[in-house]
Amino acid sequence: MLITNIGELTTNVGPSTGSGTQTHEDGTLHDAAVLIEDGLISWVGPSASSGAQGGSGAQSTPAADEIVDAGGRAVIPGFVDSHSHIVFGGDRAAEFEARMAGQKYAAGGIRSTVAATRRASDGELRARVRGFLDEMLAQGTTTVEIKSGYGLDVETEQRLVRLAAEVTDEVTYLGAHVVPAEYANRSDAYVDLVIGEMLDACALHAKWIDVFCETGAFSVAQSRRVLQAGIGRGLKPRVHASQLGPGEGVQLAIELGAASVDHGTYLTDDDVAALAASDTVLTLLPGVEFSTRQPYPDARRLIDAGVTVAIACDTNPGSSFTSSMPFCIALAVRDMGMTPGEAIWAATAGGAAALQRSDIGVIAPGARADLVLLDAPTRVHLAYRPGVPLVQRVWKDGASVWRKG
Amino acid sequence: MLITNIGELTTNVGPSTGSGTQTHEDGTLHDAAVLIEDGLISWVGPSASSGAQGGSGAQSTPAADEIVDAGGRAVIPGFVDSHSHIVFGGDRAAEFEARMAGQKYAAGGIRSTVAATRRASDGELRARVRGFLDEMLAQGTTTVEIKSGYGLDVETEQRLVRLAAEVTDEVTYLGAHVVPAEYANRSDAYVDLVIGEMLDACALHAKWIDVFCETGAFSVAQSRRVLQAGIGRGLKPRVHASQLGPGEGVQLAIELGAASVDHGTYLTDDDVAALAASDTVLTLLPGVEFSTRQPYPDARRLIDAGVTVAIACDTNPGSSFTSSMPFCIALAVRDMGMTPGEAIWAATAGGAAALQRSDIGVIAPGARADLVLLDAPTRVHLAYRPGVPLVQRVWKDGASVWRKG
Repeated sequence: MLITNIGELTTNVGPSTGSGTQTHEDGTLHDAAVLIEDGLISWVGPSASSGAQGGSGAQSTPAADEIVDAGGRAVIPGFVDSHSHIVFGGDRAAEFEARMAGQKYAAGGIRSTVAATRRASDGELRARVRGFLDEMLAQGTTTVEIKSGYGLDVETEQRLVRLAAEVTDEVTYLGAHVVPAEYANRSDAYVDLVIGEMLDACALHAKWIDVFCETGAFSVAQSRRVLQAGIGRGLKPRVHASQLGPGEGVQLAIELGAASVDHGTYLTDDDVAALAASDTVLTLLPGVEFSTRQPYPDARRLIDAGVTVAIACDTNPGSSFTSSMPFCIALAVRDMGMTPGEAIWAATAGGAAALQRSDIGVIAPGARADLVLLDAPTRVHLAYRPGVPLVQRVWKDGASVWRKG
Repeated sequence: MLITNIGELTTNVGPSTGSGTQTHEDGTLHDAAVLIEDGLISWVGPSASSGAQGGSGAQSTPAADEIVDAGGRAVIPGFVDSHSHIVFGGDRAAEFEARMAGQKYAAGGIRSTVAATRRASDGELRARVRGFLDEMLAQGTTTVEIKSGYGLDVETEQRLVRLAAEVTDEVTYLGAHVVPAEYANRSDAYVDLVIGEMLDACALHAKWIDVFCETGAFSVAQSRRVLQAGIGRGLKPRVHASQLGPGEGVQLAIELGAASVDHGTYLTDDDVAALAASDTVLTLLPGVEFSTRQPYPDARRLIDAGVTVAIACDTNPGSSFTSSMPFCIALAVRDMGMTPGEAIWAATAGGAAALQRSDIGVIAPGARADLVLLDAPTRVHLAYRPGVPLVQRVWKDGASVWRKG
């Protein structure tokens, strides 16, 4: 299949011709075409003005069985959402409403989601996850990482990683999300469970090990135990850190070679310098700051220092119930100091880097054919037209999986 | 047609059972049904547990030819977007990008849109408007006000009101949008044109007269001349005021009995008191503050003072290119101090009040059957899940005009 007449193609490969990202090359092509074969991208080049040209020479458009005319609109790589918590029961709409009204909300918080998740059947959770995935696809997200962490007991955590593994390769075991009520004031005993019986039950279904390293959740020493135990079982580390205040989680993540440290709302200059000198990605989650009225981290400071930055939604019923990568891009541009080009790089190639993947997040020969056609002439419109559903069509592994209308 | 099994129905009529609006009753019903006949709502009441009941008694669900099962989800009135500028040529994506980067942008501003609009054919403008209307319908907007104001010459202003009148009853003549380049330093002469030959050409196609009463646009004296001339021709007044700084536009609007004064970013205590004592609606346009990084006006202050508040998108290529009422609701809750119930009232019944319409913005017998089914159990989700396209299905005048997927 050939997608032709692409007005603006963001490849994330090669030099930029736009006014986009400073530190990452976004490889913008105009009047471009993309050839897809067997679920992979096989050729990227200029769009032919007529379909009559054959496949001779690197610069002429190859022939194809099926031709899709992009109508001069923009095409970008499918979004890579590298941080989500979409296997859970219930919602917390009343808690959100109280928070927005500046009121205290006594009931439950995360514990109410844990209770609802433990109660939910596999079938209920599966239907919920598939609903979120459909919603994400319709918004251009073709790869989603999914964390456990609303079970917090051996049986439920195993159910959550198993259900996640039914729909994505990017499964994260987050038994160390918070200390459950049963272990109040016995957090070390809960960590023993997380790295013992619970890890035994979950490791087979997961690729990643994650921990919420923050005052009120797990200490640096506890976080180190969790991550090292996971690494010992072949899981790769990633870390929630510096969401609510500065801490040592970022340094721990770098020390253990984590693929990504997520949140980073409160980073010290030392944190930023260490991130810039490392291979660890800093994943920004602007939906959290939007829905909790926390201050936004300064992406400009990170990018200018040379940190690799990703954007993800952190879809969860407490702090960020958006699943919209375009919405998060608009926030990153308005409130975090990113250019539209940088934000879209962070939501595609950046997310791929945060998952240590080179087969997604780019439009280049050999990459998976995960592409999004926008109902707009440029990618800038994703920030310029906030809230508007601009995703016109989505391909995943070369298959047309969603189209508008 | 009967829509049944509605988990939460926002009628905007009668007492509220929710934790919604303080000053306006939102009339929330649970487990409700709505009967539609000949494009109008004919009955609102409790949902029957079975479809077997006949039409006897006010409390039992009437019979219907077609039954739509809402599946326990929320239904709200169609959004009434009482402020848009969607008849124009070109876009200003590069200007937006420069503004977000904190850079000066030399080229054009509104003048570039005027030039592109004058150049565009009727066919081009018509296709553009219909595209925006489709996009708005898919986001739940069933009534749209459309302004002229990118022509600024007699011929083009007339084309714009004529094209707008093809698609909406709510057409606003805004020849006094800004002073065009040809009249630089001759603004009184331009006002003569606006209230003379241009008004002659436009009055027949419009319902409303509007003026941008602001330093840098039109003075209070000029605005008064414009509005009074329009009123003399049978047009009804509405005013853009206090967007960029405090001014006398609000007082002028109230004095002339304007249906609405729009923006209101900088209101004095006297403005607020005068609005509260008047029938003039204050229409908030949160997309403008989002896309220009201006401070948000405080809706809480207005509502607590007794002002009737509407929310609209102000869709335009310069200061607010969103067309998403759900996005504007999310901003109003996060950044303007409204509850979700108040924001949704403002985006439905409030917009109707700003257009002096009683046949829309409510779900009640006799009203037009403009309804939105959300893919969510409550209306709160419109703010709780920002950016997510939650509109599942839309009816306008009883006809199913959009559905997801």
